[in-house]
Amino acid sequence: MSDMGVTVKKDEDFSDWYVQLVLKSGLADYAPVKGCMIFREHSYAIWEKIQEAFNRKIKATGHKNVYFPLFIPESFLKKEAEHFEGFVPEVAWVTMGGNTRLDERLAVRPTSETIIYATFGKWIRSWRDLPIKLNQWCSVVRWETEATKLFLRTREFLWQEGHTAHATSEEAEREVMEILEAYKEIMENYLAIPVLAGRKTESEKFAGALYTMALEAIMPDGKALQMGTSHNLGQHFSKVFDIKFLNEKEKESYVWQTSWGMSTRTIGAVVMVHGDDKGLVLPPKIAPVQVVIVPIPYKDAGAELILRTARQIFEGLQKKSVEVVLDDRQEYTPGWKFNEWELKGVPIRIEIGPRDIKQKQVTIARRDTREKVAAKEDEAVTAVMGLLEEIQNSLFRRAKEHLEQNITAVRAFDEFKEVLKNKGGFIKASWCSDSRCEEKIKEETGATIRVIASDETPFSKCVHCGKTASEVVYFAKAY
Amino acid sequence: MSDMGVTVKKDEDFSDWYVQLVLKSGLADYAPVKGCMIFREHSYAIWEKIQEAFNRKIKATGHKNVYFPLFIPESFLKKEAEHFEGFVPEVAWVTMGGNTRLDERLAVRPTSETIIYATFGKWIRSWRDLPIKLNQWCSVVRWETEATKLFLRTREFLWQEGHTAHATSEEAEREVMEILEAYKEIMENYLAIPVLAGRKTESEKFAGALYTMALEAIMPDGKALQMGTSHNLGQHFSKVFDIKFLNEKEKESYVWQTSWGMSTRTIGAVVMVHGDDKGLVLPPKIAPVQVVIVPIPYKDAGAELILRTARQIFEGLQKKSVEVVLDDRQEYTPGWKFNEWELKGVPIRIEIGPRDIKQKQVTIARRDTREKVAAKEDEAVTAVMGLLEEIQNSLFRRAKEHLEQNITAVRAFDEFKEVLKNKGGFIKASWCSDSRCEEKIKEETGATIRVIASDETPFSKCVHCGKTASEVVYFAKAY
Repeated sequence: MSDMGVTVKKDEDFSDWYVQLVLKSGLADYAPVKGCMIFREHSYAIWEKIQEAFNRKIKATGHKNVYFPLFIPESFLKKEAEHFEGFVPEVAWVTMGGNTRLDERLAVRPTSETIIYATFGKWIRSWRDLPIKLNQWCSVVRWETEATKLFLRTREFLWQEGHTAHATSEEAEREVMEILEAYKEIMENYLAIPVLAGRKTESEKFAGALYTMALEAIMPDGKALQMGTSHNLGQHFSKVFDIKFLNEKEKESYVWQTSWGMSTRTIGAVVMVHGDDKGLVLPPKIAPVQVVIVPIPYKDAGAELILRTARQIFEGLQKKSVEVVLDDRQEYTPGWKFNEWELKGVPIRIEIGPRDIKQKQVTIARRDTREKVAAKEDEAVTAVMGLLEEIQNSLFRRAKEHLEQNITAVRAFDEFKEVLKNKGGFIKASWCSDSRCEEKIKEETGATIRVIASDETPFSKCVHCGKTASEVVYFAKAY
Repeated sequence: MSDMGVTVKKDEDFSDWYVQLVLKSGLADYAPVKGCMIFREHSYAIWEKIQEAFNRKIKATGHKNVYFPLFIPESFLKKEAEHFEGFVPEVAWVTMGGNTRLDERLAVRPTSETIIYATFGKWIRSWRDLPIKLNQWCSVVRWETEATKLFLRTREFLWQEGHTAHATSEEAEREVMEILEAYKEIMENYLAIPVLAGRKTESEKFAGALYTMALEAIMPDGKALQMGTSHNLGQHFSKVFDIKFLNEKEKESYVWQTSWGMSTRTIGAVVMVHGDDKGLVLPPKIAPVQVVIVPIPYKDAGAELILRTARQIFEGLQKKSVEVVLDDRQEYTPGWKFNEWELKGVPIRIEIGPRDIKQKQVTIARRDTREKVAAKEDEAVTAVMGLLEEIQNSLFRRAKEHLEQNITAVRAFDEFKEVLKNKGGFIKASWCSDSRCEEKIKEETGATIRVIASDETPFSKCVHCGKTASEVVYFAKAY
């Protein structure tokens, strides 16, 4: 029991707190293969909720799920030079099949642009074949050499990758933004994590893209976490993979493409943003268990009646499609159960003891605020339904306030360094758009430009070089 | 148009028919990596239906989905000798990470017993931790050297693999049978493919299992296809991976385990069993599109009214959760659309033309029998609902008859060879249970024992050696 709970506080040792929380809540575990992790049932169930929500969204806009091979011939990766440069240092290579050495080594997919687009060339002939809007859920491998961080940096992780081909540049642009919006809704309305949206700089964009749009969130330690990216690939890949089509006027043209991805690192963000010293705090919309009912029998004081009431409420909630567990295990005490479910982040706990039964009520405990309220037995289901929504909204509001408090506008580089050192978070500044200037800031401070604001006007000279600024950008240290 | 349809007949060149059907219906394509395939949107959507049905089943019985790493250290595979022997000849090996040669090569998972059980040892301490019932949906790689056959034999395929640990042998046995039943229901009630269930012989069992239970279906060419397997692993793996627990009496014991799998080859079975010369014929329960509505405007004859009626029925079906498409594309003729949707196997097509409108009716065409009936506009939804069920049942009935006609009981080896040569299908025979006898039959005829009947008494001497028989078995040539 004592080693079950988290033994450090979130604001004392954030990094240790995170690892303990992930391991002890049963979200994940280190794998017996270096750099890899195990997605245990609790995190996988959250991932399934995210999948469900995102699938609904993209299917409604005409995207289809598919599955392309895990292996990518080295020659494919090489076709787009920038792409190859970007990915090759961290590719895991298959060189043997059974006892036979392969003629050409195969990359375990780090991302699937090349293998998918090699096939698009075969499928696309005419404007009638466009747009193609595909998505796949799979794992990808990137041979990280830095220390493993569960959900945030592992050699294999789960994600979805979307790949589309369009007849016009405008359509591709719309697709990039439509997906960015879809991601934003997942992050804000499901994970309850507010994000900044914007374009990446040239040095931070996806290897091979025309430009990259990204969503960035702020973590409690003041570092930024990239939550999803949507790339406009222009005709970079269609030209190297020769993906052409005849338009309605029988004129030949290369297709315009996009790709976009969101991964299980978002689960790491949920842990960091909402968790507390007692464990996870899960937003109801992605909680695998939304409500747990714990009967508290006290000797002979109506144990049977307590269980009957618990079952009634259990069934009432099930009818409303609430994910509810009735924890009537005999081998654990109510106190042990409280701790376990709090650790797992279940949004609402319903307690039913002898005193509750006497007063025809139940006790409802919120995980986020840890407040308890009483509700009449026959109003319990309605109360829970309302509270689930309230918790979802309240978690977002709190995170949104935290984000707003952690955006600091600066005009001078001294101020920049001071804020970065003492406060962290996003630093909003005007920038000259010169990548050498960006590089110097990174070298001197470790901070990078997370996104370029799309609709803000520079409010000073460039924060670093003092030349005329052309863009407003958000800097941060990042995961 | 002419190259769109299947150009050979199912009963003339079954093998060519199969490949054409898979490619032209858009189920799948060959990948640009040798031996691999692309699961295109149409097959992936079927796979999602199968996943949904199986997830519902196993979650209701307390199983949880997880995800374990893709990579398995060679030393893990080696721990269970029989398992290693069985899988090593067809393992794809990762030997390089980035530019660094790995100290130990990593197998791309051919199956995950070893990596999962290496972790079970860490998680299981007490009877309170049992049972553990996990499942994962993933891809597996087996480096086949025989010719690729889409869905049936590829180097990478999709599957689910279940892995459980129990306190007693009896519990493990029950699990094996519970899953076999769940598979059977998926095969028969969803895929509409009847199966024979039974135990595998020693030589055909899973490498490392105590015994294997399997489901076998018969294909139209008389060959058997394995549809799913459920293994009782006994304590084989728990002993090598040291998975022990303290029981309620504080006595230490090794856990009892099971594993089980079902793969995308089942989609290949659906193609073979139900398809016809016009294309796929999908059972309604796994059809990504169950109903397509094709308006047939004829010049000015009420085009608008036709479309309005089509929309009404479309919405009526959507309300009943029917997966329906209203195909109002302008760039294709109704005839072209009919062919395309037939090729894709959509169970029901609704046609609405000027004559239908005049008579306030619609024409409903069944994909399986290709019969057409008229239904009053306001009864169309009800008619379709009934017909979907009728088609599902009818496909199963037909396949069941085919199975029954393709089980031939024989008593003598001459008869065995003659049936195998001229008729194919399952040959039911009595067998001495000697694996040398089984091996000789395989060498002489190419047929293997697909399953051992669980509850039948030998009706002759052993069909091959003439010694006393102890079991009734089903032989067949197999995919």
